[in-house]
Amino acid sequence: MVEGDFKKDMSRRRSGAKGTTPRSEPDVPQILSGVFNDKTTGSPVTLLIPNTNVKSEDYSNLARQPRPGHADFVAYKKYRGFNDYRGGGHFSGRLTAALVAAGVVAKKILGEHISIQAKLIEAGGSRNIEKSIEKAVKDHDSVGGVVECIVQNLPVGLGEPFFDAVESVLSHIIFSIPAIKGIEFGSGFRAATMKGSEHNDMILDESGRTATNHAGGINGGITNGNELVLRVAVKPPSSIGKKQKTLNLDSGQVEELEVKGRHDACIALRVPVVLEAATAIALADLLLIHKSQEI
Amino acid sequence: MVEGDFKKDMSRRRSGAKGTTPRSEPDVPQILSGVFNDKTTGSPVTLLIPNTNVKSEDYSNLARQPRPGHADFVAYKKYRGFNDYRGGGHFSGRLTAALVAAGVVAKKILGEHISIQAKLIEAGGSRNIEKSIEKAVKDHDSVGGVVECIVQNLPVGLGEPFFDAVESVLSHIIFSIPAIKGIEFGSGFRAATMKGSEHNDMILDESGRTATNHAGGINGGITNGNELVLRVAVKPPSSIGKKQKTLNLDSGQVEELEVKGRHDACIALRVPVVLEAATAIALADLLLIHKSQEI
Amino acid sequence: MVEGDFKKDMSRRRSGAKGTTPRSEPDVPQILSGVFNDKTTGSPVTLLIPNTNVKSEDYSNLARQPRPGHADFVAYKKYRGFNDYRGGGHFSGRLTAALVAAGVVAKKILGEHISIQAKLIEAGGSRNIEKSIEKAVKDHDSVGGVVECIVQNLPVGLGEPFFDAVESVLSHIIFSIPAIKGIEFGSGFRAATMKGSEHNDMILDESGRTATNHAGGINGGITNGNELVLRVAVKPPSSIGKKQKTLNLDSGQVEELEVKGRHDACIALRVPVVLEAATAIALADLLLIHKSQEI
Amino acid sequence: MVEGDFKKDMSRRRSGAKGTTPRSEPDVPQILSGVFNDKTTGSPVTLLIPNTNVKSEDYSNLARQPRPGHADFVAYKKYRGFNDYRGGGHFSGRLTAALVAAGVVAKKILGEHISIQAKLIEAGGSRNIEKSIEKAVKDHDSVGGVVECIVQNLPVGLGEPFFDAVESVLSHIIFSIPAIKGIEFGSGFRAATMKGSEHNDMILDESGRTATNHAGGINGGITNGNELVLRVAVKPPSSIGKKQKTLNLDSGQVEELEVKGRHDACIALRVPVVLEAATAIALADLLLIHKSQEI
Repeated sequence: MVEGDFKKDMSRRRSGAKGTTPRSEPDVPQILSGVFNDKTTGSPVTLLIPNTNVKSEDYSNLARQPRPGHADFVAYKKYRGFNDYRGGGHFSGRLTAALVAAGVVAKKILGEHISIQAKLIEAGGSRNIEKSIEKAVKDHDSVGGVVECIVQNLPVGLGEPFFDAVESVLSHIIFSIPAIKGIEFGSGFRAATMKGSEHNDMILDESGRTATNHAGGINGGITNGNELVLRVAVKPPSSIGKKQKTLNLDSGQVEELEVKGRHDACIALRVPVVLEAATAIALADLLLIHKSQEI
Repeated sequence: MVEGDFKKDMSRRRSGAKGTTPRSEPDVPQILSGVFNDKTTGSPVTLLIPNTNVKSEDYSNLARQPRPGHADFVAYKKYRGFNDYRGGGHFSGRLTAALVAAGVVAKKILGEHISIQAKLIEAGGSRNIEKSIEKAVKDHDSVGGVVECIVQNLPVGLGEPFFDAVESVLSHIIFSIPAIKGIEFGSGFRAATMKGSEHNDMILDESGRTATNHAGGINGGITNGNELVLRVAVKPPSSIGKKQKTLNLDSGQVEELEVKGRHDACIALRVPVVLEAATAIALADLLLIHKSQEI
Repeated sequence: MVEGDFKKDMSRRRSGAKGTTPRSEPDVPQILSGVFNDKTTGSPVTLLIPNTNVKSEDYSNLARQPRPGHADFVAYKKYRGFNDYRGGGHFSGRLTAALVAAGVVAKKILGEHISIQAKLIEAGGSRNIEKSIEKAVKDHDSVGGVVECIVQNLPVGLGEPFFDAVESVLSHIIFSIPAIKGIEFGSGFRAATMKGSEHNDMILDESGRTATNHAGGINGGITNGNELVLRVAVKPPSSIGKKQKTLNLDSGQVEELEVKGRHDACIALRVPVVLEAATAIALADLLLIHKSQEI
Repeated sequence: MVEGDFKKDMSRRRSGAKGTTPRSEPDVPQILSGVFNDKTTGSPVTLLIPNTNVKSEDYSNLARQPRPGHADFVAYKKYRGFNDYRGGGHFSGRLTAALVAAGVVAKKILGEHISIQAKLIEAGGSRNIEKSIEKAVKDHDSVGGVVECIVQNLPVGLGEPFFDAVESVLSHIIFSIPAIKGIEFGSGFRAATMKGSEHNDMILDESGRTATNHAGGINGGITNGNELVLRVAVKPPSSIGKKQKTLNLDSGQVEELEVKGRHDACIALRVPVVLEAATAIALADLLLIHKSQEI
């Protein structure tokens, strides 16, 4: 059962970008440890997803000309030139496959009653998502998007403020997902434009149900029994077909760069299953802490 | 010197809301340990800021009628009725005084060269901040706001992805500040509406300086040598003079509630010095890690 | 109830060394936060134990002549001369009062069924403890000792190997207690002299009860349902009345030193209640993790 | 260079038990990530050491008859019967190969100037190690031993008390090594039998050099510039050829058990390289913290 779930969620991650990317990543995970008779054993789970689609030559010019928007320059500086300029490592978007795998286990800890659903609600500034992406593909360009994640049936009481508020724990792991540049809970940035009399959610009954949900299911850093609602801003992919200009470390001059290889036009398409996984991991941690506090 | 700095930043925190709150909190910290000859000693620093302005009777009705927008209900549930309903504890906005104190030490670790400046750039949805707040005071209501924080002269290389990206570490502590409901870096949510060819920041020279700064000074979770820019959404204070409706735990009915006591019309006014402190704490941690990696 | 328990265990810590030390430390804790109606509230508990017995002049010569066996020299080096040479800080034995206070809460988490009992079983290499200490007092010298701690009625399953084995978690906090120089579990160092056929504990029934307890209640880093048994080696107090020789940082020469002030002849006398507290803290953490894993 | 060092230390681990075990484990690590041009890149290093020597049938009877001294019983209870009774997982002694691999990187962080040398100084209670082990092999039994580890040329100042004393950090990771039942620093348990006037180490000069080294190179939880000395007690291997008695979970009775498979007569022989690695990992962490504190 665990094995099948690993495959299913990883397949969702790949197919998110279908038709918008020439990449082909089978991503079938090999289970190396921690699963026996299709159940986790309590030992660490090791999955291996071999990268079957590496073309070293694609990246050869990146050694000296860091791509704008990518981690090439900071990695070169931080790791003093020892970084693997062919890409990969912990800057690779492929690392989100591991988040998805961990999310499968986390969802089992949360149980079937708690549901986590993320979807892309906007791309290129428009609710007409397909059209925005089609245009980007045609223009050899890329677009960003907004992904919303809703969690239902969480118990009241998850979150450990002062320092481990629900928002703190969620945002910490969610900003690990490459390309995320903002996060908001409930009314989020719109809350900054509201009056207290509008924003306050009237509590209706002992279960904590409120008439509105501007708080996004969280008060004082703790879940309040309503839907947990968060949205993330995903930047447009930095790798585009269009020619760009950037520094050449050899010449010290700004020169033209053409990023070869395979490009996603809208990485936000792949984010929902990864965002669900990151959300599940953070909430599973908090649920385990919560359970430990029950008498 | 340390002692004077504690007093200065704590005074900034108090005076932030001057004229918009009837509270009077002298907040003069007593240094109980860790400082000798006006320098930190390497031992833990303990500051005590006695709460001189407690009026227990103000909170007496809160035991059974949780205020909307506050942590009253979740605290009651999470701590099974053992919570101190008179307020305070780790849900109190007063806890930000401790963040400010820690920020004083963190700023010394960062050094004078690195500057951190936060300011309120919008209140009640408008750049005309004073007018928005005046109206809220008059209406016995409250307003939210947006606070922007800019850090200058950070070195390239702070941040420890995969899991401790700069955005992860900053957002984790910043969401500890009460009333924060969103955070964005660089172009943030606007990045979600942009094309890659617009958003990518062209690198100009070996220092990493870029022509634009849509990334907010961060690539791949690592500082890139440009200004670090972040903005937070601050919700309107939940305590308002206006009458509200909410559950009464005794009757099980929704009833009218008048929150007595002292109210801030715009808590976002107090946020800048706290946000600077939280930012300083996170960056000081990352700077120390960075220094440890130097050969 | 909590308040009374704080006072009781702190009083045990003080009275441990009665008659062997001229110190007089009332150690009555003031509860500053986290307790309401004599129960913890879920907010952080802050206790303040003012040091009423400071005589600054006692320590005046320590600035330049580090006492042998103490942290004076390493603190001077590590903190580049900014350390508070008057003693105190995190090197002070008084910090164990805070461990004892935390232990009071930890014991409540463990519950009354689980009992933790530590006692001094040897001093100065002899089971005739009083005599050893009397001699040390007379000689203006000091002696070490061995303290044994036994925990009864722990459930099977505490401990999170690979890296958080019961022994790892316990030894980590126990070595925070000043003067501890060794720890062993079950047969400990004697196990190194045994044959497998002697050391293996035969399992008798489904509860995990074993015929012998050479393992000290732990297999594979996890509690096995038998008594948890550990022993610690406590070095003799470094402060003695006898004249000693050590470096004078001003002259660069080894010179005579007379450590004035108040000396404990056998600090191991004070260790049992502190060791119980440290043990309780570590086990309470592991018990909460264990509870979170229950379905 | 890194690749060669991985192979060298792993080979030391294997050959430790040569002649005393019928196991044959080539342990040649495959480097899956984090190394490029024979240098670490700053990305996580992944090594894969396939277990080429698994014989499932050896373990078939362990499902219902937990071996005395092993983790079989506690794993069965803790993981509610879902544990992989064939052995392996995080209870396997093979996991120490991963410690050794991590130790290779840690030693590079420490630098060549700092040397870490561990050796078996006693087996079966005797300094005549070979004889003790020969007898154990002949008797189809096993013996324990004592391993000493000495670290030279550490700087003054490593260790972060109160909670992260050198002894705390070292003992935490060292108790992860299976079969360790005790640890002591410097004179250790013998210190408990000494007088203060004997135990105190006279400081000779500004470098911190002391006339004796009863403290084992640590004062107040911080390295003092002298040799760091620690010893661990290693229990005799639990798997022995001799017949034993233990519970049968099916019958509920104590029954005879013959542990088939491959047995080490003295696992302490394999411990030195693992102990060096664990020591290196802990000290490298502390050294990086120390470096971050330099001005």
